[in-house]
Amino acid sequence: MMLQRRFGMAFLVFSLSNFGLTLFAALITALVSPAAAGSGIPEVKAYLNGVDAPGIFTLRTLFVKTIGSVCAVSSSLLVGKTGPLVHTGACIASLLGQGGSKRYGLTWKWLRYFKNDRDRLDLVTCGSAAGIAAAFCAPVGGLLFALEEMASWWRSALVWRAFFTTAVVAIVLRALIDVCLSGKCGLFGKGGLIMYDVTSSNVAYHIVDVPPVLLLGMIGGLLGSLYNFFLEKVLRIYNLINEKGIAYKIVLACWISIFTSCLLFGLPWLASCRKFQCPPGHYNDLASLIFNTNDDAIKNLFSKGTDDEFQYSSIIIFFVTCYFLSILSYGIVAPAGLFVPVIVTGASYGRLVGMLIGSHSNLNHGLFAVLGAASFLGGSMRMTVSLCVILLELTNNLLLLPLMMVLLISKTLADAFKGNIYDLIMKAKGFPYLETHAEPYMRQLTVGDVVSGPLQLFHGIEKVANVVHVSRTTRHNGFPVIDEPPHSESPFLYGLILRAHLMELLKKKAFLSDPVPTDIDAFEQISAEDFMKRGSGMIEDIDLTEEEMEMFLDLHPFTNASPYTVVETMSLAKALILFREVGLRHLLRSPVVGILTRHDFMPEHVLALHPTLIRSRWKRLRLQFARLLKLF
Amino acid sequence: MMLQRRFGMAFLVFSLSNFGLTLFAALITALVSPAAAGSGIPEVKAYLNGVDAPGIFTLRTLFVKTIGSVCAVSSSLLVGKTGPLVHTGACIASLLGQGGSKRYGLTWKWLRYFKNDRDRLDLVTCGSAAGIAAAFCAPVGGLLFALEEMASWWRSALVWRAFFTTAVVAIVLRALIDVCLSGKCGLFGKGGLIMYDVTSSNVAYHIVDVPPVLLLGMIGGLLGSLYNFFLEKVLRIYNLINEKGIAYKIVLACWISIFTSCLLFGLPWLASCRKFQCPPGHYNDLASLIFNTNDDAIKNLFSKGTDDEFQYSSIIIFFVTCYFLSILSYGIVAPAGLFVPVIVTGASYGRLVGMLIGSHSNLNHGLFAVLGAASFLGGSMRMTVSLCVILLELTNNLLLLPLMMVLLISKTLADAFKGNIYDLIMKAKGFPYLETHAEPYMRQLTVGDVVSGPLQLFHGIEKVANVVHVSRTTRHNGFPVIDEPPHSESPFLYGLILRAHLMELLKKKAFLSDPVPTDIDAFEQISAEDFMKRGSGMIEDIDLTEEEMEMFLDLHPFTNASPYTVVETMSLAKALILFREVGLRHLLRSPVVGILTRHDFMPEHVLALHPTLIRSRWKRLRLQFARLLKLF
Repeated sequence: MMLQRRFGMAFLVFSLSNFGLTLFAALITALVSPAAAGSGIPEVKAYLNGVDAPGIFTLRTLFVKTIGSVCAVSSSLLVGKTGPLVHTGACIASLLGQGGSKRYGLTWKWLRYFKNDRDRLDLVTCGSAAGIAAAFCAPVGGLLFALEEMASWWRSALVWRAFFTTAVVAIVLRALIDVCLSGKCGLFGKGGLIMYDVTSSNVAYHIVDVPPVLLLGMIGGLLGSLYNFFLEKVLRIYNLINEKGIAYKIVLACWISIFTSCLLFGLPWLASCRKFQCPPGHYNDLASLIFNTNDDAIKNLFSKGTDDEFQYSSIIIFFVTCYFLSILSYGIVAPAGLFVPVIVTGASYGRLVGMLIGSHSNLNHGLFAVLGAASFLGGSMRMTVSLCVILLELTNNLLLLPLMMVLLISKTLADAFKGNIYDLIMKAKGFPYLETHAEPYMRQLTVGDVVSGPLQLFHGIEKVANVVHVSRTTRHNGFPVIDEPPHSESPFLYGLILRAHLMELLKKKAFLSDPVPTDIDAFEQISAEDFMKRGSGMIEDIDLTEEEMEMFLDLHPFTNASPYTVVETMSLAKALILFREVGLRHLLRSPVVGILTRHDFMPEHVLALHPTLIRSRWKRLRLQFARLLKLF
Repeated sequence: MMLQRRFGMAFLVFSLSNFGLTLFAALITALVSPAAAGSGIPEVKAYLNGVDAPGIFTLRTLFVKTIGSVCAVSSSLLVGKTGPLVHTGACIASLLGQGGSKRYGLTWKWLRYFKNDRDRLDLVTCGSAAGIAAAFCAPVGGLLFALEEMASWWRSALVWRAFFTTAVVAIVLRALIDVCLSGKCGLFGKGGLIMYDVTSSNVAYHIVDVPPVLLLGMIGGLLGSLYNFFLEKVLRIYNLINEKGIAYKIVLACWISIFTSCLLFGLPWLASCRKFQCPPGHYNDLASLIFNTNDDAIKNLFSKGTDDEFQYSSIIIFFVTCYFLSILSYGIVAPAGLFVPVIVTGASYGRLVGMLIGSHSNLNHGLFAVLGAASFLGGSMRMTVSLCVILLELTNNLLLLPLMMVLLISKTLADAFKGNIYDLIMKAKGFPYLETHAEPYMRQLTVGDVVSGPLQLFHGIEKVANVVHVSRTTRHNGFPVIDEPPHSESPFLYGLILRAHLMELLKKKAFLSDPVPTDIDAFEQISAEDFMKRGSGMIEDIDLTEEEMEMFLDLHPFTNASPYTVVETMSLAKALILFREVGLRHLLRSPVVGILTRHDFMPEHVLALHPTLIRSRWKRLRLQFARLLKLF
């Protein structure tokens, strides 16, 4: 139609097909599985840290994420597919880890061996590594991504398992690419991998190339931090809109789609025709970037031997468009990644810098684009090693030195501002992510300083009515159990009981009529297998008579009598290390009985209790040292 | 001389120069720093696990390791340089971490920022990664080696630091190679890197190549286990000899040198001349392998387009020689690595398999040699991912699929026998290495079950004579401190005090004349900095008068009042997780006071106390599952 100069019709077809695809993606996301919106990497990262966001690993989410991501990427929105691929991989892994999907009857019996917390975490880690490996055909990069960015706990055995996963992904992917290159997969064409156009494997770089590389790193750090800042603001505005209802969400997505279509269709008209390839069909350099898949745009930008192909104006327009359009596109209610938009944006300004420096450098513009992408990724995502290895694998092992320099500088510079993009999104979503290191002011506090709210505890032999009341009025998942006279000589912390186990006891009605310990009865009614079920009981589902409410429960046989315990004078930083390294959910405090959970260690909570610490000298000291150490 | 047919003279020169170099290496190792003998990887691995073997990181060791390794490798002994390089890297890192060497006056003031346990561990980890990177010019392989094999604790920040280290190593190394390739480094020639001779980057492999690859994996697993078995036996015999004195050690090294010289000089006479390159100068294929550096031998074996170059007999002789000579050479008193001998041996039988299969496979013999090396490495060292990546980096990214298969099979098969080679050496040296996972029978035991020997504890206010007596009669590094009536209402575990702190107190003579707590005096005499010194006091160096012995020490202000504590009914497996993950040295037990150290968790200790567990059903169950899980 463009060739026939039927521009109006062409725009209509272009924008309507974009609109339809976006609408479909937004509809299934909003109606079927809202958890599938966005990148998915923050959710998976939080899950691996021990935060279980609702519905992120269901079969529905998997379905919506896959279909929705295909639609969103096809609809010309500037969104990526890497994040959704990571989420998809993690989803499949988690479904395998819970023995399939019970709800849809897809279960395998042999999968029950993996049905425990540790194996499920391992599987999800491997799944996320597989996602990156699939997006970039980078097996080692995927492994390192999982290790550097995703995993909160790591075992030596996991290295091999994750690498096995990513290697299988890479092998299958390469086989499929080979099939497609031989022309046997019809419309799918050559697939959407970003591969650098390499003919000679030796890239020579000299001392004169150092200043431009340093410059790129600095620009990347600044632009990346700014990107994160804008993205956070836009997400906050979008959240206000999205909270109003499903209709608002979908309208927002539609508007973004229409805006994108107009922009993409309109912008190429601004660029003048280049001397080559232009007549008869209004083909120009900006259109070659804009009217392409993102992957092909990256390929164009990364390719060498095309130093004369782009004009300054086109590259600048393209860069500005990508920068802001990707920020606007991310928050809509559809699966949307950030990796590819960031690479496109970074590559475009890298190319621009290369064009400005021109013949003063030995590097060609394609290499500048690669370095620009690295610097922008380093500035916004801060995952230096995995990015370096992914880019090395993408570009067939060129450029180790300049890539390292660019990433080091952009990361260091950007770290002076705020956290990385995924941490910002996690914070925006309110996930209580637990960092490895303790904040310096935590050394000034003891475990006794951070307890808030009235403590709920049970006695070894407790009245049923009391258990029901506490279960109804609190959302705690673990309760300390104490023994007091006359059942023991002095008050004594017996252990910790879980809410799920209490629910099971209430369900089985293993009650005593008198508050006297008789543990024989209890074990006859209840077996160990009853406690293996997960999330089996809600307090609201349990019906008890008046009479039963007046009876008693002997909690002793069902209490964990050797929970991890700390004294209340222990430094908070020390307790945090225990909590984090062992991967606990509840930490008991003695001799004044208390319970510590993840929330008690969150900086926001601690600082809210002790506002004077915010500006303490520890904080300032830390800032200075952190700068220094980050150089290494 | 060989060309002039003066064979006797040639042998004399060959064997005497070998003898001299070996003698020198053995002498400096035995006299200056015995800790520099052997590979060094087991020592560094044990250090990173928390076992501090004496003298492994001194400036002397660094010196002896570097010089000795150069001499040993040059002296035609079949020993490697990778292990020594890893040890060297770790040594330099540790010296930086302790602020230089005090003994030789080489200290830097700014290094004191790294003078703490965590930074030192991090530095040593990075140093060991640098060693592997330097040996193979494999930055990612070095990183993964440190991660998979060396590190016992791992933080996300360490990924970047280790990669930065290895990348710098790789860049410097490449620059030096470039300089040497241009002929500017005289006798050093082309350097000893193993680089695969690649011209086309596409290696095609088909389904018919699967059986030979499987075969190689199986042979590698079996030969590798057998290699470990022989090596352990030989090391045991050598230990018996070496224990008798330095003279015995040196004589043993000299004998091995003479034996090696005879073998290497004599063997090429067995091989008949090949049709090419032979007359006039008795050059033959076996000599091309034997009279070369190991690195060049590997290069020859790995190279393609040389399918007709080697005879069956030569390869078989070479393989057998390498296999047994490397076992005999390792245990002598000189720096000696295992990596390169294992690669040479593996490559030779890989090539042999390739020759036997011949034209039935698409792979050339060079690739078979690479796969053979991988299988033998997998069978003896079991570090699958790092080996895979190192070999991928060595061979420029060919062969991902067959390498993975070979490593998977050889590792799985070999794991059915005994531990990996470094674990065997660590066990032979008696290092108490703490594994990540708890043995299954530990779930049947509680913390109370493993305490051995009489407990030494102190009271909050303790008699000086008592402190001196206990310090003299035990080697413990931590003691529980309890308060008893009349100082407290009931017996009460106050905390943990370290031997080093007790020594400092005795030195400062911060004594009380009466057993009454007055904490003001104590803090005036002693400041926090006094406790920062390390290993400052030996009990034998402290002189106390009779009068002082009758005085008292108030330990309260110097006791760690919030040590990690577990109840004695806690499962041993659970306590081990706490001990291992948090990286403790002492774990307190309550309410019956006790102390748990690394030795209490060692399987040997636990099984010695509870011999019935050795054949318990848990053990059998574990064996079955372990097999199954290792497939992943």
